[in-house]
Amino acid sequence: MLYSHILVAVDLTAECHAVILRAQALANSSQAKLSLINVVEPMAMAFAGDVPMDLSMLQQQQFDQARERVDTFAKTYPELSPDQCHLVYGQPRQEIHRLAKEQAIDLIVVGSHGRHGLALLLGSTANDVLHGAPCDVLAVRLKSST
Amino acid sequence: MLYSHILVAVDLTAECHAVILRAQALANSSQAKLSLINVVEPMAMAFAGDVPMDLSMLQQQQFDQARERVDTFAKTYPELSPDQCHLVYGQPRQEIHRLAKEQAIDLIVVGSHGRHGLALLLGSTANDVLHGAPCDVLAVRLKSST
Repeated sequence: MLYSHILVAVDLTAECHAVILRAQALANSSQAKLSLINVVEPMAMAFAGDVPMDLSMLQQQQFDQARERVDTFAKTYPELSPDQCHLVYGQPRQEIHRLAKEQAIDLIVVGSHGRHGLALLLGSTANDVLHGAPCDVLAVRLKSST
Repeated sequence: MLYSHILVAVDLTAECHAVILRAQALANSSQAKLSLINVVEPMAMAFAGDVPMDLSMLQQQQFDQARERVDTFAKTYPELSPDQCHLVYGQPRQEIHRLAKEQAIDLIVVGSHGRHGLALLLGSTANDVLHGAPCDVLAVRLKSST
């Protein structure tokens, strides 16, 4: 058996279906359990003039929308049982690694835009997840971007 | 079929057997062709006093040793046909991506030490290969280091 428990990390954009499909195919070929994680990142502090704005309502809305979309994913992919669809709040790398350790994940699957050079400065989750990962990491190349 | 042609990039250390075994298992489960690449990096310029030293002989020796070791790998893993074991000279990321494009590779497998923070500055092939890769990249976590 190649892997026993695969975690697919998604950003809930249309592109992530390709990532889930790849993770699902790998899970099927390994007869592995498949889990999903989406991490909602904390909003940056905003100021209206000198007064800091309260972003908690916006943050809650963002979280609720993510919850709905994760639930839709769970229905779209029958291999994903609802209790294996994790929606967490925090820094993606940290949360993905934490769940991977907690659940004895042996493969993390994540989408990659294959960024390099200057574009990499904009941030790359695949790159970030790789650093210090407790297990194997598969970066699925998203074809739509370079 | 998950993948059709898998390229495993190795540094010829003892650790890379785990990476080849993982690539081999994936190739078997996908009925994919398996190729191997080792990249010999150019030696840095060296000076003896003010006189630049000629490193070409040393470089040739390094290349010959790598050739022997790649041939041994090819014998150890019967799935690797000798003509699919590539020994090239250059910059690893560039050469791995070049071969991946030339041979229509759809998965590159590479070992990863899971470095992060300061240790990452020492260089990480997995991280480097990921940037601008033309296909999926699997970073196999090497257990011996942190």
